[in-house]
Amino acid sequence: MIPRYSRPEMVAIWSPETKFRIWYEIEAHACDAQAELGVIPKENADAVWKARDVEFDVARIDEIEAITKHDVIAFLTHLAEIIGNDEARFVHQGMTSSDVLDTTFNVQLVRAADILLADMDKLLDALKRRAFEHKDTVRIGRSHGIHAEPTTMGLTFARFYAEMDRNRDRLARAREEVATGAISGAVGTFANIDPSVEEHVCKKLGLKPEPISTQVIPRDRHAMFFATLGVIGSSIENIATEIRHMQRTEVLEAEEFFSKGQKGSSAMPHKRNPVLTENLTGLARLIRMAVVPAMENVALWHERDISHSSVERNIGPDTTVTLDFALSRLTTVVDKLVVYPDNMLANMNKFRGLVMSQRVLLALTQKGVSREDAYRLVQRNAMKVWEDGKDFETELKGDAEVTAVLSNAEISEKFDLGYHTKNVDTIFKRVFGE
Amino acid sequence: MIPRYSRPEMVAIWSPETKFRIWYEIEAHACDAQAELGVIPKENADAVWKARDVEFDVARIDEIEAITKHDVIAFLTHLAEIIGNDEARFVHQGMTSSDVLDTTFNVQLVRAADILLADMDKLLDALKRRAFEHKDTVRIGRSHGIHAEPTTMGLTFARFYAEMDRNRDRLARAREEVATGAISGAVGTFANIDPSVEEHVCKKLGLKPEPISTQVIPRDRHAMFFATLGVIGSSIENIATEIRHMQRTEVLEAEEFFSKGQKGSSAMPHKRNPVLTENLTGLARLIRMAVVPAMENVALWHERDISHSSVERNIGPDTTVTLDFALSRLTTVVDKLVVYPDNMLANMNKFRGLVMSQRVLLALTQKGVSREDAYRLVQRNAMKVWEDGKDFETELKGDAEVTAVLSNAEISEKFDLGYHTKNVDTIFKRVFGE
Amino acid sequence: MIPRYSRPEMVAIWSPETKFRIWYEIEAHACDAQAELGVIPKENADAVWKARDVEFDVARIDEIEAITKHDVIAFLTHLAEIIGNDEARFVHQGMTSSDVLDTTFNVQLVRAADILLADMDKLLDALKRRAFEHKDTVRIGRSHGIHAEPTTMGLTFARFYAEMDRNRDRLARAREEVATGAISGAVGTFANIDPSVEEHVCKKLGLKPEPISTQVIPRDRHAMFFATLGVIGSSIENIATEIRHMQRTEVLEAEEFFSKGQKGSSAMPHKRNPVLTENLTGLARLIRMAVVPAMENVALWHERDISHSSVERNIGPDTTVTLDFALSRLTTVVDKLVVYPDNMLANMNKFRGLVMSQRVLLALTQKGVSREDAYRLVQRNAMKVWEDGKDFETELKGDAEVTAVLSNAEISEKFDLGYHTKNVDTIFKRVFGE
Amino acid sequence: MIPRYSRPEMVAIWSPETKFRIWYEIEAHACDAQAELGVIPKENADAVWKARDVEFDVARIDEIEAITKHDVIAFLTHLAEIIGNDEARFVHQGMTSSDVLDTTFNVQLVRAADILLADMDKLLDALKRRAFEHKDTVRIGRSHGIHAEPTTMGLTFARFYAEMDRNRDRLARAREEVATGAISGAVGTFANIDPSVEEHVCKKLGLKPEPISTQVIPRDRHAMFFATLGVIGSSIENIATEIRHMQRTEVLEAEEFFSKGQKGSSAMPHKRNPVLTENLTGLARLIRMAVVPAMENVALWHERDISHSSVERNIGPDTTVTLDFALSRLTTVVDKLVVYPDNMLANMNKFRGLVMSQRVLLALTQKGVSREDAYRLVQRNAMKVWEDGKDFETELKGDAEVTAVLSNAEISEKFDLGYHTKNVDTIFKRVFGE
Repeated sequence: MIPRYSRPEMVAIWSPETKFRIWYEIEAHACDAQAELGVIPKENADAVWKARDVEFDVARIDEIEAITKHDVIAFLTHLAEIIGNDEARFVHQGMTSSDVLDTTFNVQLVRAADILLADMDKLLDALKRRAFEHKDTVRIGRSHGIHAEPTTMGLTFARFYAEMDRNRDRLARAREEVATGAISGAVGTFANIDPSVEEHVCKKLGLKPEPISTQVIPRDRHAMFFATLGVIGSSIENIATEIRHMQRTEVLEAEEFFSKGQKGSSAMPHKRNPVLTENLTGLARLIRMAVVPAMENVALWHERDISHSSVERNIGPDTTVTLDFALSRLTTVVDKLVVYPDNMLANMNKFRGLVMSQRVLLALTQKGVSREDAYRLVQRNAMKVWEDGKDFETELKGDAEVTAVLSNAEISEKFDLGYHTKNVDTIFKRVFGE
Repeated sequence: MIPRYSRPEMVAIWSPETKFRIWYEIEAHACDAQAELGVIPKENADAVWKARDVEFDVARIDEIEAITKHDVIAFLTHLAEIIGNDEARFVHQGMTSSDVLDTTFNVQLVRAADILLADMDKLLDALKRRAFEHKDTVRIGRSHGIHAEPTTMGLTFARFYAEMDRNRDRLARAREEVATGAISGAVGTFANIDPSVEEHVCKKLGLKPEPISTQVIPRDRHAMFFATLGVIGSSIENIATEIRHMQRTEVLEAEEFFSKGQKGSSAMPHKRNPVLTENLTGLARLIRMAVVPAMENVALWHERDISHSSVERNIGPDTTVTLDFALSRLTTVVDKLVVYPDNMLANMNKFRGLVMSQRVLLALTQKGVSREDAYRLVQRNAMKVWEDGKDFETELKGDAEVTAVLSNAEISEKFDLGYHTKNVDTIFKRVFGE
Repeated sequence: MIPRYSRPEMVAIWSPETKFRIWYEIEAHACDAQAELGVIPKENADAVWKARDVEFDVARIDEIEAITKHDVIAFLTHLAEIIGNDEARFVHQGMTSSDVLDTTFNVQLVRAADILLADMDKLLDALKRRAFEHKDTVRIGRSHGIHAEPTTMGLTFARFYAEMDRNRDRLARAREEVATGAISGAVGTFANIDPSVEEHVCKKLGLKPEPISTQVIPRDRHAMFFATLGVIGSSIENIATEIRHMQRTEVLEAEEFFSKGQKGSSAMPHKRNPVLTENLTGLARLIRMAVVPAMENVALWHERDISHSSVERNIGPDTTVTLDFALSRLTTVVDKLVVYPDNMLANMNKFRGLVMSQRVLLALTQKGVSREDAYRLVQRNAMKVWEDGKDFETELKGDAEVTAVLSNAEISEKFDLGYHTKNVDTIFKRVFGE
Repeated sequence: MIPRYSRPEMVAIWSPETKFRIWYEIEAHACDAQAELGVIPKENADAVWKARDVEFDVARIDEIEAITKHDVIAFLTHLAEIIGNDEARFVHQGMTSSDVLDTTFNVQLVRAADILLADMDKLLDALKRRAFEHKDTVRIGRSHGIHAEPTTMGLTFARFYAEMDRNRDRLARAREEVATGAISGAVGTFANIDPSVEEHVCKKLGLKPEPISTQVIPRDRHAMFFATLGVIGSSIENIATEIRHMQRTEVLEAEEFFSKGQKGSSAMPHKRNPVLTENLTGLARLIRMAVVPAMENVALWHERDISHSSVERNIGPDTTVTLDFALSRLTTVVDKLVVYPDNMLANMNKFRGLVMSQRVLLALTQKGVSREDAYRLVQRNAMKVWEDGKDFETELKGDAEVTAVLSNAEISEKFDLGYHTKNVDTIFKRVFGE
C-alpha cells in the first residue's frame, strides 16, 4: 500500500482498530448466541457488551502479543482487562482463532467492496454525464490506430459506461462471494460449538453462514473476488489508454484537466502530460498482480495450511486500497476531461475525406459499376488526395467518369456525417435505457 | 493444445469446419434480416440457404486465402462457388469481418461453456455420490498437515462439491458474459447496416446483441470468462492436491483407481503413483496462465487493435480444451477413487488419542480445575504417550489426579468420535439440501 | 502452438521424430559408456548403432505405447525390432525413464535456444543497419506521449539494439541454464548406474552433467529459462509499441512495409494497419504467460512429482515456437520499415518551435534575467504560438524585452537542431563500439 | 510491505532519508563533474558538500512539495536552505528529474541486491552445514509422494544448496543488470549536459553509465531483475514444501525448531505446525507476483511514460523486503531444523523391504530367470508383505524357487543400504567441490 495512492476511508478498513472492533463484535455476538443456547451464562454474555463503546488499546494488545505470541489471545486478554477477568471467562468458548480471523477478513472485504461499489457509481455518473454531453461530438473512429469511420465522443464515453456497468455487476457478485462467515471450529465440524452460533453471528454481521468450511472459509471465493478486481483494473487501463492516446501531441482531442496555477502550464503550453492516466495504467498492473496469488491460495493442504495468510495480508489491503484510489482518480479524470471537438474535426479531416472512400466505392457498385472499375475510380482520386494533398470530395466531383454515375448531390451525401451518427440514439437507448 | 489432454467434442468446436459453419450461419441469417428490411432481394437471401447442408471445403478456402490474404473473403468466395456468384452478390453486405469473427468467437465460447457445464454436472454427481457414501467414514482433519480433530471423508467430498457447485454458478455467469454478438460495422456505429440485423442474427444464434460495440465486442467480457476458468482450474488443483496427499505412502487413505492389468501393480504394490491428480495439478497451471493475457487484452487501442487476436487463437481453444479434459479426468478420479477407511482410522490413532488432549483439557477446567493444573495433568499424560508410546485414554484413567475429577465414563466420552460427527447431517443438509 | 505463428525449423525440434532421435542417441551413448565400464558387452553397445541411420516409425511406437501405456518402453521395444531383441537386451540398463526424458527436454531447449540466438543475431543486424541509416534523421522525442526535445530515429533504433543485445546475452545464459543432462536413476543416487555414464552421454550431447539431480533435473533452471524468454517477449512488445505509435494516422513517421500488390492499399491509402506489430504485441503476451507456470513448476514434491510435465509439454514447444516466429517477424518489420523523415520534421514543428521554450528560458536566466522574468517572457511568446498559431522563434525576435538580452543570432542558436544531436556519435560508440 | 515480514536494514534502503541522501550524492557528484568541465564554478560545486553530514529534514521537504507539487524541486529547495541559495544556484543544472530518480532507484536495487546476496551466503552456509551433517542419514526417496529408493538427507540439503547456489549466481547477474545510472537529459541525448558528468556520477556511485537511455533507464533491466527474484522465490517455495512434507504427522522426518517455552508444545506434542515454511510458501507467491508487472513495464511509450512508476514504488520495496525476510527466515529454519533419522528409517521400512523389489527382480533376471518368471516370484512374495504384513527379505529367503537362484547372502545384499549411498561422496564433490 503506497500512501500517495491511498484514501483514508479504505485504509481505515484495514487498520488494527477496525480489525479489533470486528473481532469484538464477533465474540460478543457469539456470546449472545451461546447464552441463548444455555452454554454460557447470560450475564457473562451481557458483560461483554460493556466494551461496546470502549476504544481498544492497540499498543497494549501488541504488548501482550509480544509475550503470548498469539494475536487472538492477546486481544482476549485485553478484553478481559476491560470487562473483568471473571466476566470474560466464557468469551471465545468453543471457537477457533480462524473462526474470528476468517470471518473478519470477509467483513473487511465486504466493506471494501461497498466502498468500491460507491466509487463505481460515481464513475458511472461521470461517464454518463460526459456521454450525453458529447453524444453528437463527431470524431474519427480508429482501428489499428488508423482512421476508419466517424463515430462520436459520446459513444466512446458510452462504451466505457457500459463496460464499467458490467464491472459494477461483477463487483456486486464478487461481494456476495465473500459475504460469508464461519464459526465452525478446528476442522469445520462444529464439534465444540453449535451451528446456530455461526448463524447468529453471521446474521448480525450481514454475512451468510459458509455452508461448509474446514478450519477456514474456502479460498475459491477470494480467488473469484480478486479476479474480479483484476478485470476492473483492466477496464481502468482501457479507459486510461484511450485518454492517453487522445492527449498525444499529434492527436490532442482531449486533455486531463490542468489547474490554472499548475507551474509550467503556460511557458510550455504543449507540455501537459497525461500523468494521471499513465499512473492509472500502472495501478492497473498492481491491481492485476493479485489475481494469480489469490488463485494459488485455493489449494490449501487438507483442512487448511497457512500459506494464504501472508498473501492476503498484502493483497487484501493493497488491492482494495489501490482500486479505490484508481476508481476515484479515474472519476476525476473523466469528470474534468477537457475535450477538444475542433481538434476532433481537424483530425478527421486530416486526409481530406479519404475515410469516406469506402462509401464512395459502395455507391459506385450500387449504381452498377463493376467492382474493378469502381475500385479504379476511387483509387485514382484517392491518390491525388494522398500524394498531392487535394480534397477527395472535390476531386470526385471533377472526375467525369464518376459524375457520369453519381450526381454532385449523391457524392456530397457520401460525405455527410449524419450517415454515421444516425444510430447513436438507438445505441444510447441500449446503454442508458433512455 | 496437447492431443493427449484433449477430447474430441471440445476440439471440434475449434475446428475450421465448425468455424466456417458458424460464419455461414451468421451470413445467412444476416441476409434474411437484410431481405426483411428490403435492403437486399429476398431470393438472394433464400439462395444462401442452399448451402445449408453442404460441407465446406476447408482446403479450397485455404487455397483462396493464400491468394486473397483475407480469410473472410476467402470463405465468401468459396460460398459463392457453391451457391452461385450472382446469388451470393449480397452476402456480407454492410458488414465488417469483425462482425463475423467476433460473433463466431463468442458462439464457440458459449458452446465450450455448455460442454464445461455438462462436465461439471458429472463431476458434481460423482462428488455427491462419494460424499454420501463416505458421510460417516471418520478420518482425521489436518491443519498445517498436522492432525487436528476428527472429520469424515464425506465432509471432504461435500466441501469439494460445494466449491465446484459455486464454480458451476460462476461458469454459468461467465457463459452469459460472452453470449453476445455484434454486427455493427467498422467502428460500431451501424453506419452501413441496421441494428435489427444484429438483433436477428443474435437471436438465431442464441446470443444477445452487444449493447455497444466498436469494431469488436469489448474484451472485459472475455477477461471475465477466462478469469472464471482460472478459478475453476484452481479448484481442480485443490481437489487434486488433497488426493495426492491421501495417496502418499505414509498416509495411504485413498488411491487413484488402478486397473488390474496395469503392469507393476503387484510386484511393487506400494508404488502406485497419483499420476492423474499430479497431471491435474499441472493442467491447472495451464488453465490459469490464460488469465493475465486475457486481462491484458482488454485495453485495445481506440475502436480496436488486433493484438488480442493471436492471444485468443491460443487461449480460446487451449484453455477450454484443457479444462474440459481436466474436469473429465477429475470426474473419473473422484468416481473411482479407492478409499481406505481402515487406514484412515489407523492414521487417526497414530498418536494413540493425543488428538483428544484439547477436549480433556477443557473437561478438566469445566470441572473447576485451574487452567494451569489442567494443563499440567494433560501434559504429563501426553508426554507418556508421545515419548513412551502409551495410550492416552488408558493413561488418563490411571492418573489419580485426573480420576479425582473425571470418572472413567467421562474420560471415555472425550474419546467418542460421535462428538465430532454429530453435525455432519446439518452440514450435508446445507450443502445438498437433503 | 498456432500453425500460422510457427516456423518449420523450430517446430521440427518438438516433433516425435526429433524426440525419438534424441532418445536413441542418449541410449546409444549410454550403452557405449556401460560397455566401457564392462557393465554390458561391447558388441551389444555396438549393435545399437545399427539404427543410426534408420528412421523410427512413430506410428509403430504409438501402437506399442497404446498397449504398454509407457512411452519409453514403447520406444525401446521398437528399437529392439530394428536392431534385434537379443542385441537390444542391455539398452536402458540401470536407467530411469526420466533420465531419458529430462535430458531430451534439455537438448530440445538448447537447440531451440540456438535457433533463437540466430534469430536475435539477424534482428540485431537489422536494428544496427537501420540505426546507422537514420543516425541523423531528426525526430521529436516524446515523454508521456507529448513532445519533449529532439532526438534521432537512429537513437531509437540504437536503443532497441542495445536492449536486444542485452537480451541476447540473457538468452545465451538461459541456454547455459538448461544445458545439462542427468542419468542418475530413480532418485538421483546413481544406485544402478555409474556417474561416468552420465558424463559420457552429456559430453556427446553437448551438455554438462547436472551436479545433483533427483529423479529429475531441478526446475529452477527451466523457470529461469522461461523467465528470460518472457523478458525478451517484453522487449519485442516494446519495439512493436513504438512502431504502432509511429504508424498512427496522426503521427505517420513510419509504416510497416506494404507490398505493392496488397489489396486496398491505394483506394484507401491512409488505411495501412500496423497489423504485424499489433500481432507481435499479442505474441508477447503469449510468450510471457509461460513464466508463472514455469516458476510454479519448481516446487515439485520430494524427489519429483509429475505436475510439471503437462505444463512443459505445452510451454516447451509453444513458447519457443512463438518467440522464434516473433523474432523473425520483428526482424522483417525492422528491416523493411518505411521511415518518413519529412513527417518527422513536420511533427516536430507542429507547435512551431515551442519545444525549444526550455532552452530559451535557460538562456535568458544565464544572461542574468531573473527566473520569474524569464518565465514571463517565454510565457507571453509561447501563448501567442499556442493560441494564435504564431512561430515561436519569430515572436521572440520581435519581443523587445527578449532581444534586449538575446541577440537574433543567440535566439536562432536555441533553435539549432545540432545542439540536440551533438552527442549522437558518442552514444553510437557506446552502443556499437564504432 | 508488511511490517511483520520486514527487516530494518532492507526497509531502510527504501526510506525517504536514504532516498534523499542518494539524490544528494548524485547532485553533488554531478556538480563536481560540471565544475571540472568548467560549466559551473568550482566553489559552487564545493559548497554542495557542506551538506555532506547534514541530515535532511523529510518533513520540511514534504512541506515544500505540498506547494511545488514536485519532489525533486522540493528537495533542491531544501538543499538550498542548507547550503545557501546562492551556493545552490547551479545544482541540478542541465539535469532532468528522471536522471536523479532513475539512478537512485538503481542504487537502491543494487544495495538491496547486496543485502540479498549476503542473505543467500548465510543460507548457503546453513544448507552446506546441514548437508554434511546428514550426508549419511538414510531416508527414502520419493517420486509422486510414493516411496521409491533410498537416498540421504544430506543429498536433500545438497540439492537445495546447489539450487540456491545457482540462484546466487543469478542474483549477482541481476544486480549487474540494474547497476547502471543515467544522467542524459529529457530524451537521453545529453543535449544539456556532457556525457562525462554521467560517467563521473556513475563511477562514484558504483554504477556503469547506461550506454543509451531515453528519459529513463530501459526497463528490460528491471524486468530481468524481478524475474530473477521470482525464480529465487520459487526455490524458497521448493525448500519450504519439502520441509512441510517432512513435518506432516504421518511422515515426521523433521520439524521446524520449537523453542522449549513455546506454549502448547507438551500438552499437544503432536501439534507442532510448520508455520514458518507455510508462511514462506505464501511469501514466495508475493515475490513472484512482481514478475509480470515488471515485464509489463518494459513497453513504455516513446522516450518514456510514467506508468512504470507506481508499479515500482510498490514492487521495489515490497519484493526486496519480502525476499530478504524470506531468505533470513528460511536460513533460520534450515539452520535449526530438527531432523529425525529414526523416523526416516522407520518410514523407509514401512513396507518391510518392498522398496527393494526392483533390485531383487533385476538380480533374478541377471541370474538367468526369465523376466516373466522373475516378476512372478517377486510378485508372490511382495503380496505377502503388502497383504499380510510379512517382511520381504524373510519371505524371499523362505521361497525355494528364489533361493534356488539367489543365495541368502545375495538376497541380503539386495537390502544393503550401502548400495544406494555409494555415490554420495561423488555427488558431494560435484556440489561442494570437496
